[in-house]
Amino acid sequence: MKWPANVQIKEVGPRDGLQNEKAFLSTEDKIHLINLMSRTGLNYIEITSFVNPKWIPALSDSLEVAKRIERVPGVTYAALVPNLRGLDKAIEADIEEVSVFMSSSETHNQKNINKSIGDTFPVLKEVVQEAQMAGKNVRGYISTVFGCPYEGKVSVNNVIQVADKLLEMGIREISLGDTIGAASPKQVQIILENLLKRYPIDKFAMHFHDTRGTALANVLMSLEMGITTFDSSAGGLGGCPYAPGASGNVATEDLLYMLHQMGIQTGINEEKQLEAAQFIQERIGRALPSRSLQVFTGRPAPTVNEGGE
Amino acid sequence: MKWPANVQIKEVGPRDGLQNEKAFLSTEDKIHLINLMSRTGLNYIEITSFVNPKWIPALSDSLEVAKRIERVPGVTYAALVPNLRGLDKAIEADIEEVSVFMSSSETHNQKNINKSIGDTFPVLKEVVQEAQMAGKNVRGYISTVFGCPYEGKVSVNNVIQVADKLLEMGIREISLGDTIGAASPKQVQIILENLLKRYPIDKFAMHFHDTRGTALANVLMSLEMGITTFDSSAGGLGGCPYAPGASGNVATEDLLYMLHQMGIQTGINEEKQLEAAQFIQERIGRALPSRSLQVFTGRPAPTVNEGGE
Repeated sequence: MKWPANVQIKEVGPRDGLQNEKAFLSTEDKIHLINLMSRTGLNYIEITSFVNPKWIPALSDSLEVAKRIERVPGVTYAALVPNLRGLDKAIEADIEEVSVFMSSSETHNQKNINKSIGDTFPVLKEVVQEAQMAGKNVRGYISTVFGCPYEGKVSVNNVIQVADKLLEMGIREISLGDTIGAASPKQVQIILENLLKRYPIDKFAMHFHDTRGTALANVLMSLEMGITTFDSSAGGLGGCPYAPGASGNVATEDLLYMLHQMGIQTGINEEKQLEAAQFIQERIGRALPSRSLQVFTGRPAPTVNEGGE
Repeated sequence: MKWPANVQIKEVGPRDGLQNEKAFLSTEDKIHLINLMSRTGLNYIEITSFVNPKWIPALSDSLEVAKRIERVPGVTYAALVPNLRGLDKAIEADIEEVSVFMSSSETHNQKNINKSIGDTFPVLKEVVQEAQMAGKNVRGYISTVFGCPYEGKVSVNNVIQVADKLLEMGIREISLGDTIGAASPKQVQIILENLLKRYPIDKFAMHFHDTRGTALANVLMSLEMGITTFDSSAGGLGGCPYAPGASGNVATEDLLYMLHQMGIQTGINEEKQLEAAQFIQERIGRALPSRSLQVFTGRPAPTVNEGGE
């Protein structure tokens, strides 16, 4: 079996993780978390999202977080921006790379960003152009690639159409998101086979959620297809807004464990990453879904009946 | 990618799961659990272990459980037996297939069954012979194939030597156990490549633990090597005696989800299996590690600080 020798992990916990946690972290804790992450060997951290705080109040201090974290040379600090207003804040905060996002299913796009897929393209195009004029790389997330919480199956053609448009705009890399954690290795193979007929492999990163335990199997399939960039989240932070109690992003520590055991280099220190995850687990106040973190902390699993039968 | 069309799942939750749970289940609950499992489409359930109750008090009612469950035609009811005394009870209980077990690492074998590897063979040989004379199939578990909690790495040669001896005895199938949940797909490939030089693929089943989240990735690798039999546990029951708070066996529901999404048939109804897992989760009184079960029950994850803060 041929696997890549090196993989880049993009840590999205401070953004994709925290935006889905019920517990609100203090600004100090967010800054401390990102500072810990900057010392693990990670070279890419998506630190926040510059969205309207009305939508995601958990990240309403994004500007302060971005300004006050320690910037470690060699680490790219990235953030999500939905529109020009968000982009302005990201530029003000000296963010190096911005990400835009949309869905490959009409209903999810409508519910998530209040526009049709067709109406989303011109808005993103404007953001991409202005970001590029400001000298920023732009990354694009496509959600619901492997299934939509409203529509179920999403056709490969939808994904291809959205990818075409985003790449036309000059987006450097597309992160293919398994928003509801429904992907199987077979689906990964089908989607990637289709995309790779049109584009080189380095245009794509994979963004798996471990909602049904399949995340690392999907990573393995992606590696076999040649993918070398994966998104993950410290501790497996963040749940699934469509499945209460379910797991969120694949945990960075579990991903690291598998890659390193397979002889694939990431440049990240597993123990330091576990310490960052342990810190955030203590602050969040619940056992995070990361399997490796539970081994590391050696904590007996909490009981279902919180505070008495 | 070539995957098998059909896979057999051997449900080991009532034995391997329950023997590692702190909570003791009532005999009635065990019987109810097995009766639920018998109606999911599973055709193989390892229902208990006939070991000395001093070692595993959680399973001290094994004889009663085995006698009182409803036997559904087409389902094989199996049990673990360490020695002739255990075999006698299994025969008395009309168990159809018995499993013997040993380790591929000297220290784990010594600590687990109080004998050297060399001294274990004659004991097992006697059990296998008598079981066969009684018309029973015998299955063999090899523990610590992918790592030992005491010795760390286990050499492939150790595994081959133990497999050779067990197959010589007439054991029908060997279940290769990742006792501490440390395996990676690369290791799976190496071990299986070595064993398949000597034996046909249908001599082996894989028994993964999801301690570090890699279980389904290891399943995928095994499928690619041609394996068609996997052990798993309802709800991911059972922890790891060497890592407090860690996950146990790969959850049957997560395995089913992945296999079915890949178009691989198992004959098992996912929803019925989830209902069996939900029943046992409620009786155990803690959130079980199965990801799919948490989606199914939609239960918010329990807090870390039980009753405090």
